[in-house]
Amino acid sequence: MKRSVKEIAEAVGARLVGDGGAMVGGVASIASASPYDLVFVADEKNLAEALQSAAGAVIAGEFAAAASSKMPLLISGYPKLTFARAARWLQEQSSENTPSKENSGGAHAAAVVSSSARLGAGVVVEARAVVAERAEIGEGTLIGAGAVVGREVKIGSGCRIYPQVTIYPGTTIGDRVIVHAGAVLGSDGFGYVRDREGHYEKFPQVGRLVIEDDVEIGANTTIDRGALDETRIGRGTKIDNLVHVGHNCQLGEDVVIAAQTGLSGSIVIENGVVLGGQVGIGEHARICEGVMLGGQGGVLPNKVLRGKGVAFWGTPAKPVREYLKQLAALARLGKK
Amino acid sequence: MKRSVKEIAEAVGARLVGDGGAMVGGVASIASASPYDLVFVADEKNLAEALQSAAGAVIAGEFAAAASSKMPLLISGYPKLTFARAARWLQEQSSENTPSKENSGGAHAAAVVSSSARLGAGVVVEARAVVAERAEIGEGTLIGAGAVVGREVKIGSGCRIYPQVTIYPGTTIGDRVIVHAGAVLGSDGFGYVRDREGHYEKFPQVGRLVIEDDVEIGANTTIDRGALDETRIGRGTKIDNLVHVGHNCQLGEDVVIAAQTGLSGSIVIENGVVLGGQVGIGEHARICEGVMLGGQGGVLPNKVLRGKGVAFWGTPAKPVREYLKQLAALARLGKK
Amino acid sequence: MKRSVKEIAEAVGARLVGDGGAMVGGVASIASASPYDLVFVADEKNLAEALQSAAGAVIAGEFAAAASSKMPLLISGYPKLTFARAARWLQEQSSENTPSKENSGGAHAAAVVSSSARLGAGVVVEARAVVAERAEIGEGTLIGAGAVVGREVKIGSGCRIYPQVTIYPGTTIGDRVIVHAGAVLGSDGFGYVRDREGHYEKFPQVGRLVIEDDVEIGANTTIDRGALDETRIGRGTKIDNLVHVGHNCQLGEDVVIAAQTGLSGSIVIENGVVLGGQVGIGEHARICEGVMLGGQGGVLPNKVLRGKGVAFWGTPAKPVREYLKQLAALARLGKK
Repeated sequence: MKRSVKEIAEAVGARLVGDGGAMVGGVASIASASPYDLVFVADEKNLAEALQSAAGAVIAGEFAAAASSKMPLLISGYPKLTFARAARWLQEQSSENTPSKENSGGAHAAAVVSSSARLGAGVVVEARAVVAERAEIGEGTLIGAGAVVGREVKIGSGCRIYPQVTIYPGTTIGDRVIVHAGAVLGSDGFGYVRDREGHYEKFPQVGRLVIEDDVEIGANTTIDRGALDETRIGRGTKIDNLVHVGHNCQLGEDVVIAAQTGLSGSIVIENGVVLGGQVGIGEHARICEGVMLGGQGGVLPNKVLRGKGVAFWGTPAKPVREYLKQLAALARLGKK
Repeated sequence: MKRSVKEIAEAVGARLVGDGGAMVGGVASIASASPYDLVFVADEKNLAEALQSAAGAVIAGEFAAAASSKMPLLISGYPKLTFARAARWLQEQSSENTPSKENSGGAHAAAVVSSSARLGAGVVVEARAVVAERAEIGEGTLIGAGAVVGREVKIGSGCRIYPQVTIYPGTTIGDRVIVHAGAVLGSDGFGYVRDREGHYEKFPQVGRLVIEDDVEIGANTTIDRGALDETRIGRGTKIDNLVHVGHNCQLGEDVVIAAQTGLSGSIVIENGVVLGGQVGIGEHARICEGVMLGGQGGVLPNKVLRGKGVAFWGTPAKPVREYLKQLAALARLGKK
Repeated sequence: MKRSVKEIAEAVGARLVGDGGAMVGGVASIASASPYDLVFVADEKNLAEALQSAAGAVIAGEFAAAASSKMPLLISGYPKLTFARAARWLQEQSSENTPSKENSGGAHAAAVVSSSARLGAGVVVEARAVVAERAEIGEGTLIGAGAVVGREVKIGSGCRIYPQVTIYPGTTIGDRVIVHAGAVLGSDGFGYVRDREGHYEKFPQVGRLVIEDDVEIGANTTIDRGALDETRIGRGTKIDNLVHVGHNCQLGEDVVIAAQTGLSGSIVIENGVVLGGQVGIGEHARICEGVMLGGQGGVLPNKVLRGKGVAFWGTPAKPVREYLKQLAALARLGKK
């Protein structure tokens, strides 16, 4: 579904320079763009290349406004953000306006939907997905092929649950949540009590998992339910692939967690924290608002990391500046 | 299915203090308990809170026996262990006594079960699961929605195989084994032979995987079959989410492995070893009985770690005390 | 399907010593071999054991040619490689010659194959697999139980796609590619733009994933599509379980990546690189041809590692010799 550059400019609040009549339908990189694609330029040094590309229009910063070019321009103070919004807007137009199997709603003949499940308007359940007893799925949500939605799971509206996702019984998911293929939500946490013979008795894992609005969860990531209470992922938090979140963790809003990071049990991650890839955090630790922790960093159990905008690195994690000094000292020592 | 506090006390061997007639059906945390829930107190300082909670009964240590309270008490020398056992007992009562689709046995109409597969009494095969030729599944085992049980797989009795699990052909699984969603059991190991042109020829991965009784395996964990011989996971071993166990590994009994730990090929892990999260162990290493290895620790190929009850940490792993001294020395050095 | 030792010798180019009439059908370790199994000996010290084993024939180096034994010998300059090739050849004979459900081709009655999908001769689609609109699957490829092949995916000939794999729309896969259970190919990359309120807007992830011929991908591994351009995995590259490859990564040919390694976005891995397990590499880094990087090693964003045949280790990764000196110095310091 193509839209005019003028319409796009209005939708994303950008200033149009040049011909607003060109029609575009998607986004691309400068190198691969077709005349029906939007591209963006965040740095003036790439402007010439964009203007000479095959793209249909260019989103760029104020630096581009005076360029002499036939290419339609959408001028924005934040060209990358405007580009992302334009991409989303184009996609929304497309799915709202194309009559297709994907948005007419309903369950595929090869899906298994319990008669006690409640599906909102426009819900699509793809082939071989299973929706169990008393599950509730909000308007316009997509349940991908082969996904399993357990008993009494609640999923909000406008979500995309990709193929092969498993959602354990009783999990609650907000609106506009994206869950990529193979992710497991609400599995049992890892808790045992050792008996006098040295065997492990399973500690009950009967709590819940709550995922708030606008969360995105990567492929094959696993998030455990609470043991007795709940695990919670705050609004707008983004989690990459193969991440592990243990039982009873409490993640705040707008947290970013890169791939393969692992959180053991009962950890608090406050709002706006950024965790690099392969980070490991011990039980009951707290990462305070706005902390950044570099890739492969490690935090000991019960530890508290504080400092808005402060970057930590290493295991045990310390402020980057301090850690770099240690690495430099070690390098000198190794040369002696 | 609710049971009286008196029955529970008898079932788990706790001493009843107070009214044994109260009926409870589940377990909870002190904060979230309803009158039909059991709670537990391991530390005297939490006793008052428990006694004032909405719970139906409290499991506690001897310290609670003299408390003056209307709350029924179950006194035990090991309150957390007793709580875990009570939770399991209540769950067992519930599934044995409620006539339901889950325990009447049989395969869902949308499951695919080979005519040559053998299913014991009370086996449940949920929607869309596949059970292939000549597979054998023991009494009362649950095969979750969408799970794939390969040819000639043997699964014991009382197991729970959660949704989307894949079990490769020929794998053998004992009794009371729990496998969480998305786990892959018996996949090919990672072995190649490089030819003179620098290309890799796949080394045969035709061995087996044997999982003994009472093992629990976390979500999206992967355990490879042996290359020519077998991979084995010993009785009672507990493995968390996203763990990797390579071909030919031999894990003993009552081993605990936290999330995202990786074992490459032909490693021996003896009985009672505890591995933290994100640990990495090289080929042919041996971790001797009772060793503990802290999170993110690394062990080089062919290395042997010894010492019952000794904690190791770091990469390459060394006794914690020694490693902490090195970290302290490095910290001093970084300050110079 | 058994074959004579003479036929095998011819097929793999080994020199037959002894009776070529013995029939073998598979491969095994020396300890577990039956009379119908081939075994191999790469090191002369294991020869006597092999000759006394129950095996039907032994593949060995020139050192074995003069052994006095009734055991048929296949002499090769590269016995392990010859063994691997013999194993593959025996498997190919078996599947070409046994008329069975697996090679007669066709989709299982419980598979869901779009009428617009194109399946080559001998394609097998197992139970509950889904093949979406306009997908194309080449001759003799197996789509395992429950796998999901998205719209417009192209898969070459002779591939094995194991159960529960998810392939996102538009992904392209070459010939003879093996993808183990639960792997996710072509999922969205992890990219966001932060707005002025601190919320994250999803950056479009609309590029492609291309996997070239002869690649093998481990269980539950995830490989993201390009954001705007493509992610590419080069010919002959082998990737273990639970590996993460981020958007826009470009992997060369004959690369080997062990389990749980993570590549963030836009990384270049040149031909012949070997990455150990749990390695982490930052955005836009380049690992040059023939570099080896040890387990748990870490590479910072934008960093270039060079040196054919040079081994690196540690975080940040440095040449092993240099890193070992640092570790030794640190150990000395810790003892003071």
